[in-house]
Amino acid sequence: MEGFGVHTSMWTMSWDKKGAEYAVSQAVRYQMDFLEIALLKPLDVDAEHSQRLLEKNNMRAICSLGLPEGAWLSKNPDTGVEFLKVALEKTAQMGCEALSGVTYGGIGERTGFPPTEMELDNVARALGEAAAYARSLGLLFGIEPVNRYETHLINTGWQSVAMIEKVGAHNMFVHLDTYHMNIEEKGVAQGILDAREHLKYIHLSESDRGTPGAGTCDWDEIFAVLAAIDFKGGLAMESFVNMPPEIAYGLSVWRPVAASADEVMENGLPFLRNKARQYQLL
Amino acid sequence: MEGFGVHTSMWTMSWDKKGAEYAVSQAVRYQMDFLEIALLKPLDVDAEHSQRLLEKNNMRAICSLGLPEGAWLSKNPDTGVEFLKVALEKTAQMGCEALSGVTYGGIGERTGFPPTEMELDNVARALGEAAAYARSLGLLFGIEPVNRYETHLINTGWQSVAMIEKVGAHNMFVHLDTYHMNIEEKGVAQGILDAREHLKYIHLSESDRGTPGAGTCDWDEIFAVLAAIDFKGGLAMESFVNMPPEIAYGLSVWRPVAASADEVMENGLPFLRNKARQYQLL
Amino acid sequence: MEGFGVHTSMWTMSWDKKGAEYAVSQAVRYQMDFLEIALLKPLDVDAEHSQRLLEKNNMRAICSLGLPEGAWLSKNPDTGVEFLKVALEKTAQMGCEALSGVTYGGIGERTGFPPTEMELDNVARALGEAAAYARSLGLLFGIEPVNRYETHLINTGWQSVAMIEKVGAHNMFVHLDTYHMNIEEKGVAQGILDAREHLKYIHLSESDRGTPGAGTCDWDEIFAVLAAIDFKGGLAMESFVNMPPEIAYGLSVWRPVAASADEVMENGLPFLRNKARQYQLL
Amino acid sequence: MEGFGVHTSMWTMSWDKKGAEYAVSQAVRYQMDFLEIALLKPLDVDAEHSQRLLEKNNMRAICSLGLPEGAWLSKNPDTGVEFLKVALEKTAQMGCEALSGVTYGGIGERTGFPPTEMELDNVARALGEAAAYARSLGLLFGIEPVNRYETHLINTGWQSVAMIEKVGAHNMFVHLDTYHMNIEEKGVAQGILDAREHLKYIHLSESDRGTPGAGTCDWDEIFAVLAAIDFKGGLAMESFVNMPPEIAYGLSVWRPVAASADEVMENGLPFLRNKARQYQLL
Repeated sequence: MEGFGVHTSMWTMSWDKKGAEYAVSQAVRYQMDFLEIALLKPLDVDAEHSQRLLEKNNMRAICSLGLPEGAWLSKNPDTGVEFLKVALEKTAQMGCEALSGVTYGGIGERTGFPPTEMELDNVARALGEAAAYARSLGLLFGIEPVNRYETHLINTGWQSVAMIEKVGAHNMFVHLDTYHMNIEEKGVAQGILDAREHLKYIHLSESDRGTPGAGTCDWDEIFAVLAAIDFKGGLAMESFVNMPPEIAYGLSVWRPVAASADEVMENGLPFLRNKARQYQLL
Repeated sequence: MEGFGVHTSMWTMSWDKKGAEYAVSQAVRYQMDFLEIALLKPLDVDAEHSQRLLEKNNMRAICSLGLPEGAWLSKNPDTGVEFLKVALEKTAQMGCEALSGVTYGGIGERTGFPPTEMELDNVARALGEAAAYARSLGLLFGIEPVNRYETHLINTGWQSVAMIEKVGAHNMFVHLDTYHMNIEEKGVAQGILDAREHLKYIHLSESDRGTPGAGTCDWDEIFAVLAAIDFKGGLAMESFVNMPPEIAYGLSVWRPVAASADEVMENGLPFLRNKARQYQLL
Repeated sequence: MEGFGVHTSMWTMSWDKKGAEYAVSQAVRYQMDFLEIALLKPLDVDAEHSQRLLEKNNMRAICSLGLPEGAWLSKNPDTGVEFLKVALEKTAQMGCEALSGVTYGGIGERTGFPPTEMELDNVARALGEAAAYARSLGLLFGIEPVNRYETHLINTGWQSVAMIEKVGAHNMFVHLDTYHMNIEEKGVAQGILDAREHLKYIHLSESDRGTPGAGTCDWDEIFAVLAAIDFKGGLAMESFVNMPPEIAYGLSVWRPVAASADEVMENGLPFLRNKARQYQLL
Repeated sequence: MEGFGVHTSMWTMSWDKKGAEYAVSQAVRYQMDFLEIALLKPLDVDAEHSQRLLEKNNMRAICSLGLPEGAWLSKNPDTGVEFLKVALEKTAQMGCEALSGVTYGGIGERTGFPPTEMELDNVARALGEAAAYARSLGLLFGIEPVNRYETHLINTGWQSVAMIEKVGAHNMFVHLDTYHMNIEEKGVAQGILDAREHLKYIHLSESDRGTPGAGTCDWDEIFAVLAAIDFKGGLAMESFVNMPPEIAYGLSVWRPVAASADEVMENGLPFLRNKARQYQLL
């Protein structure tokens, strides 16, 4: 996990053979260092095909997911661990380096109350089991804090670090996302300051999930602080332009957040790369 | 609606006699020009008491609300209009100048799909009836766009203007909120640019709803653009520090967003007032 | 003066035939709407050649200058007016629309004291004569405030407006520069707020005069406020990468402020154009 | 050198007994951790009086200066070293911890050309002698890069580090200033990134040298990056409100940069302290 990559949602939300081939060809075209593969339905993935496709194109990858409701670690930790184990196996079979994302719960999980001790205990225990399994497969295992509307469990960098320390697994890491940081952190860089050496992956996503550089994120502050903590992990552009309706609900995207995917690639991508280079992160 | 005020949530979420008296005394203490009263349960309000209290303290006020689920205009426009009429009557009886907020629906209303024509038609027709009733009472009537997680109907300044133009009522206005703008607009000031002469009221709320000045909002940009469009409306500080649990769900506030209410008043309030004065908005 | 243009210093500091032809060809290549021609030595310009060159390429232009020491309006107003008249004649002969820049003095003019009444009176009287002459030639006539180190006379937007009001000439306008505003104004947009309807031209120059987008200027704030005041004038990119030594002194550029002119054109130009389009200024 | 202090120019430009007593009393009143004493005329200072005054008030201090023209290290290194030795002796006698500022030259020193090898060699050799003398007195010795108009020698963080490495003295440090960084650095935090472990002192000065928080400096970015590099040095507020005319020339301050010194102390000081606390730098 290093260099500049992109979330596959730029090109497909279906990691079937056709979707995978298109996404990898585009990632090569745009000279990405890696792809982040959305592992929404791990069992449906033809891991062998993905592995060959990635290897043939010399493309590194990581996987990410959110858990389906029956597998939320806070409520159904055992089911959740089983789900994560399958996803980790697929991740390893595909030749990916890590599994990350909302690995602790669902996008949209909210009880209406602050997280309880029992919820956090359930999450920690289950993450510990999943992390051990990930280690046995040679994988890193990340957790991504998301904003208050998408979960009540982990919203900030410091909460992620607290969870990792509670679990105590050395192959776990914090995976931040500028879109969520812009809502949750006291200063967009605070999450980076809090996560520091635990931070190995970051989504570069604009404040409205549209074209990077055309929103309210303070990119100089973000990149300067990444440089200051000597960040060496993966920088992954993410934009949710033109989501399919069935995905839109969880993400609450009700209108096109950019004029087109082209605008994201032609304006947003050079913007982020130039900034990353300016701060010597690439 | 002009000058610098504050949302009553700083001091109470219950506009009963005790809550009202405390909030008004604090508003006087902090030299507020007006109060925004959360009209969560209009029928329970002793309007006569509020009217005397406000008048005695020479304190102006406006009311705001979100609709309960059975009264969402998109689905139950007739019930919604009845609810709004009661709220408007209370607003007038209290001697307030306007009713505003999520007057078109519920905080948390999401169908999982973009707004349909029928939903928007229902909303427009009902808002038109409510606006006419407001006019008969001498009141202004506002709509506040909120972020994608709190509604799927109206998230941005331009959507608010489109709705007001669809309704065609001259006593309607746009009520923006910097917290939501920071998530939804392409540049935090874009909503102000789009709303322009329709903008008569703005919530000054930090990116995490905590202490103004300690988050990610670009306040210079916000105030400079307000000055540039010659904004003359009300500036209302809002912070959701220490919400009661029953309110937290709709707002998805799971942790204290500031160290204390004192921090908001002692750090955030002078910060906002200094900036507003710098740009000659006060 | 409208649309997006560029200062000729990107390509030449010598507006001789060769320099002019190269600059115009490049301006066409980069689809500029206009050129700003540095009229350092008005008498040396072959105006007829320039006029034909510009017309043939359908390229609009304005001229700009700073006065040589013997012609500073504060001290030698009569000589200054003569110099300006020659420059205005050349400007008209070249088919340009305006003369602007530090038309009131020298870049580097500082007495060590705040401007005196006599200095300002001299400047105003001389500017009045020059403005009248400009009007007789059908030209607009601008003044550009520059930072405290480059002049002690006019550093801010409001000082420019005060001078224009003191002169009382209707063909005068304020010409701002983001590089100077970043040093002098209380908030980078304050100069725009103060100049408002007087503002007809703005230099888009980064905080270190290098690649736009790679410095400390808050471009969203700048463009948002330009949009808010309904700015219709000229947007002119300016960068002083690789100045010849004889120019460097006045501008105090002691090191390359960008890696190359290419970096300015390939990174800075798209950055500015994208932002200008985002705020519907193009 | 740690904690939050202030440049004495807030209260006096004359470090005579009266000026010193007033400045120290004010520093105590505002609970400063240290004072930065402008050592404009080292020989005139009654070091014993200062030492007693500081000790009695339990006030730490550092000294700063710029060199008079005859003592510029680039041209007159030997005279410069003599001047610095006197200043260092006074600094030690006063019980101060360090001498810093434009210790390598004059404020306003510009040849009109980039620094030559000979100039830089002279500066390095002289700084080396002064640093050795400082070490013998138990003092730290700093260099402050200033903007292009105030010197042609050292304008940025990386140039300061290059000079310190050229000198090779372990008691030397980089002393940054946000006002200069805002003009010279590629992103206001770049100088901090470049200076890193060499950075032991920073002037917190607004973009126009007026009231901190009311200009164009991006303070969140500055403080976040200071926190990220684990900065432990001194934070010194600086504002040049109401300079005496004889000082104004070097600093090119032609108008009041703030409404009053009170505005700086009542608005700017709490703004900076709140931000420093937010990022746990205090």
